[in-house]
Amino acid sequence: MRVHQLRVEEVLEQILPPSTIAPARLHEAMRYAVLGGGKRVRALLAFAAGEVAHAQPESVAVAAAAVELIHAYSLVHDDLPCMDDDRLRRGKPACHVAFDEATALLVGDSLQSLAFQVLSQRPWACDPGRQLEMVRTLAAAAGSRGMAGGQAIDLASVGMELSLPELEFMHIHKTGALIRAAVLLGAACGTGLDGDAHARLDRFAKFSGLAFQVVDDLLDVQANTSTLGKTAGKDAVQNKPTYVSVLGVGRSRELAEELRSEALAAIDRLGPQARRLRELTEFIVMRSH
Amino acid sequence: MRVHQLRVEEVLEQILPPSTIAPARLHEAMRYAVLGGGKRVRALLAFAAGEVAHAQPESVAVAAAAVELIHAYSLVHDDLPCMDDDRLRRGKPACHVAFDEATALLVGDSLQSLAFQVLSQRPWACDPGRQLEMVRTLAAAAGSRGMAGGQAIDLASVGMELSLPELEFMHIHKTGALIRAAVLLGAACGTGLDGDAHARLDRFAKFSGLAFQVVDDLLDVQANTSTLGKTAGKDAVQNKPTYVSVLGVGRSRELAEELRSEALAAIDRLGPQARRLRELTEFIVMRSH
Repeated sequence: MRVHQLRVEEVLEQILPPSTIAPARLHEAMRYAVLGGGKRVRALLAFAAGEVAHAQPESVAVAAAAVELIHAYSLVHDDLPCMDDDRLRRGKPACHVAFDEATALLVGDSLQSLAFQVLSQRPWACDPGRQLEMVRTLAAAAGSRGMAGGQAIDLASVGMELSLPELEFMHIHKTGALIRAAVLLGAACGTGLDGDAHARLDRFAKFSGLAFQVVDDLLDVQANTSTLGKTAGKDAVQNKPTYVSVLGVGRSRELAEELRSEALAAIDRLGPQARRLRELTEFIVMRSH
Repeated sequence: MRVHQLRVEEVLEQILPPSTIAPARLHEAMRYAVLGGGKRVRALLAFAAGEVAHAQPESVAVAAAAVELIHAYSLVHDDLPCMDDDRLRRGKPACHVAFDEATALLVGDSLQSLAFQVLSQRPWACDPGRQLEMVRTLAAAAGSRGMAGGQAIDLASVGMELSLPELEFMHIHKTGALIRAAVLLGAACGTGLDGDAHARLDRFAKFSGLAFQVVDDLLDVQANTSTLGKTAGKDAVQNKPTYVSVLGVGRSRELAEELRSEALAAIDRLGPQARRLRELTEFIVMRSH
């Protein structure tokens, strides 16, 4: 995993405009928001799915970087005062605290543009038709019927009691859509998978995305701020429905285990090249931050 | 012009998710921010450039809609309290006033994603390679070295005295980049123009983009709020450097005329199919809002 983390970090470092180029402060803030932090779970999922499709790692690194740019933009905007109003991210001051709100807004906007710029660059490993499909997949995953829509549902549900299906609907959008895109983009960098393998990966992505969120909700309650690198306990303070508030800690822990089993079962038949996907599932469920 | 305005309006209407689909409030706000307003200058430029390249109007309409989505997102974000803090847009309450700040933030984010989703959709009139190039052009125009970067420079220059070249640098990014993209995308929908015609269109786009901004600055001083559909006189209130503050009204008016002549000269040799580009140049310089 470490070698893939370094690889995507290197690509991100190269893609982001240097802070010597105007507008310098914006570029400095973009680099601040993206580099030197984060678990890069989405990038790792892209690499692992790429292995199933025999993709070249250099090729996957570009797709993985695009997904990480979308993820980074969403964190910068989510932390803004009009959204979740969080001052700490990845163990350091949030972008709008380190810079200012207007800059953070433009950082998020620019990172989103950059993701699509990167994903459409030529020459790249795969043919233009496949590349265009990746743009479409990422754009749909990021938009109002994906990640941004999930955030809207999240905001609208503050103070409400959600049923488990409603909570699941929210998270399939908010976290799930981009995790799914990471898996699909990684796989799309390789030789075309058959429909069955594609469906299995998609199913894997759905369950591991949900597992990721259940564990996130558990960590918000059980870990402390310095381990998390973001403010612990804020879901309860903000009166947000979570898996823990709906199911309790014990049942949430069980659910995480069930989702992990489902995710592993989905890729059971994909053989040894799905090894890293299995490792990542363990990491997602066992992680401490 | 009217038929093209209706055509792009129709495409936007179809592209935007209906407000019956969850998250309903976000989709309602996206439609509010995009539909039923705006001069659609960028869309008209795309259609006019498309005529130079003998493009099919149905094809240009998709590219034009993508550009208008980026433009609409930028207006929603620019109006937010942490940016220009404006409450009026296109003659009605700004998106964050009609809805709320968090929703407006997500509206902008989602409209940007939607622009790239639309531009990468298949099957479309042109080949995937060309389409991918359009994605790249639009992403670069929207990002930190284009429109969003221009907005960052704009914010940083509040209360400062800029030289004319500095002002020009700001506007080539803030307004010019997206106008240029509109022209290039429209042209890219047709049969490949030769290098010379492409360079002429690019030069035209640069001058008409600057002319557009000079007139914008003049209108901010000379028109009233109800004609403009946005708050008049706000540049002076916000102590922003403009063409008027740097050059005065008389010289700004002269400059607009000079830029118009330069724009027209650039497309002089493109023959009768550049007629609409010429009409648009007149419209840009003569408009009252």
